[in-house]
Parts: sequence; structure tokens; C-alpha cells
Amino acid sequence: MALVWEQVVVDAVDPEALAAWWREALDWVTVSEPGDEPELRPAADSLPGLLFVRVPEPKSVKDRLHLDFRPDDQAAEVARLEALGATRVDVGQVDPSWVVLADPEGNEFCVLGSRHDG
Amino acid sequence: MALVWEQVVVDAVDPEALAAWWREALDWVTVSEPGDEPELRPAADSLPGLLFVRVPEPKSVKDRLHLDFRPDDQAAEVARLEALGATRVDVGQVDPSWVVLADPEGNEFCVLGSRHDG
Repeated sequence: MALVWEQVVVDAVDPEALAAWWREALDWVTVSEPGDEPELRPAADSLPGLLFVRVPEPKSVKDRLHLDFRPDDQAAEVARLEALGATRVDVGQVDPSWVVLADPEGNEFCVLGSRHDG
Repeated sequence: MALVWEQVVVDAVDPEALAAWWREALDWVTVSEPGDEPELRPAADSLPGLLFVRVPEPKSVKDRLHLDFRPDDQAAEVARLEALGATRVDVGQVDPSWVVLADPEGNEFCVLGSRHDG
């Protein structure tokens, strides 16, 4: 393959804090060195990962790209993420099979229906 | 793992056209049925993929999340992508090791330094 998908870059006002939040949310590993831009992967050798880079401006509009995750148990995962500080977001969704949440900097992401629901 | 990263969702004014562009750009496969929201993956059983969903509004600000790809040969890949219609974008980058391009709807993405550069 000529192009390998290495990462999604996430602009952040506080990249260290946002990366720490996502590491906990996803149970991923940090592959960056301390002091470098924080980079997370599902496992050390698993691509793509998430790389958090500092920008001065906060999020201003609905993200044009967002992440979708498939849970084992949707209700349990949504409750766990809300306990970590995720917030429910209304983006006009009408399909009740997925739940839209936002991370601490407001980035929308979805928890899809549970795997066993098909 | 409690949450599996299934896809990045890309908002698009013309999801079919944008998905067709990315399929060509990445040499990925379409895993969606005709008429459904277009979904691409590196291979049929390889996650995460890209899912393109229709929105009424065009892109308005720099994407908060963007995709980074690692090429075998950066110059060759950038030339190929520009021939497909990608455009160079100035987001204030100062590191010359990567090239910032935009897809036909203006979504920024990066072609990183070639693998053999380290």
C-alpha cells in the first residue's frame, strides 16, 4: 500500500490533558516520549493512532470529522464515558441506535450500537 | 477491548463523490452497499474505515481532526494526489518533513515523510 494511515491528528488547547482523557476512555497506550506531542495507539505497534497537537483556538463548530466506536455494551460504555466527563451532544441525530458524546474539548464522537445487536 | 474504533465519519456535501475520491487516493475498498452511506476500509475486514455522511453545510474552518498518512515515497505520492485533485494548503506549518494537502471538499490531510527517512 502506497499510503499507510498512521494517525488522526486532534487539535487541542491542552493536548496533554485531552490525550490523558482519551487514553483512559479507550484503554490505549501512550507511544510518545514525555514532552513530545502525546500519541496514543490501541497497542504499541497498532496503527492508526491518535496524535494530539496544540493549537491556540478552541473548537468553534461541529467537527467535520469524528470518531465512531463499537462497544461490547453500549449502555455500560456510555455510562463509563459520562463518568469520565463525556457529555451528551445533540447534533440533530434521529437514529436512536447510537449515542453522540463530546470529549472535554467538545469533540463529538459516537458510541455505536453494541456488537451483539448486530 | 471495550470500545473498538470502527471508523472516522467524514461530513460531506457530496458523500458519494468524496468517497470515490478517497477510494482512489488510498486504494481502499468499498464495504457499503450501493445507496447506503459510502464506507471505505483498507481491506474488507480491516478497521477503522472511513464513512462519508451527507450534511447540508460545506466545510467552514480548519478541521479540528485530520488524517495523516505515511508514504513509501513522499514526492511521488504528493504528485499522484495532486494529479487526482488534491490541493496544497497553508496551515502555517513550519516543519518541512510533511506536506499538507486538502481533499476536494477542503479537508486537510498530511503526507508524512517517507518511511525510509526514518
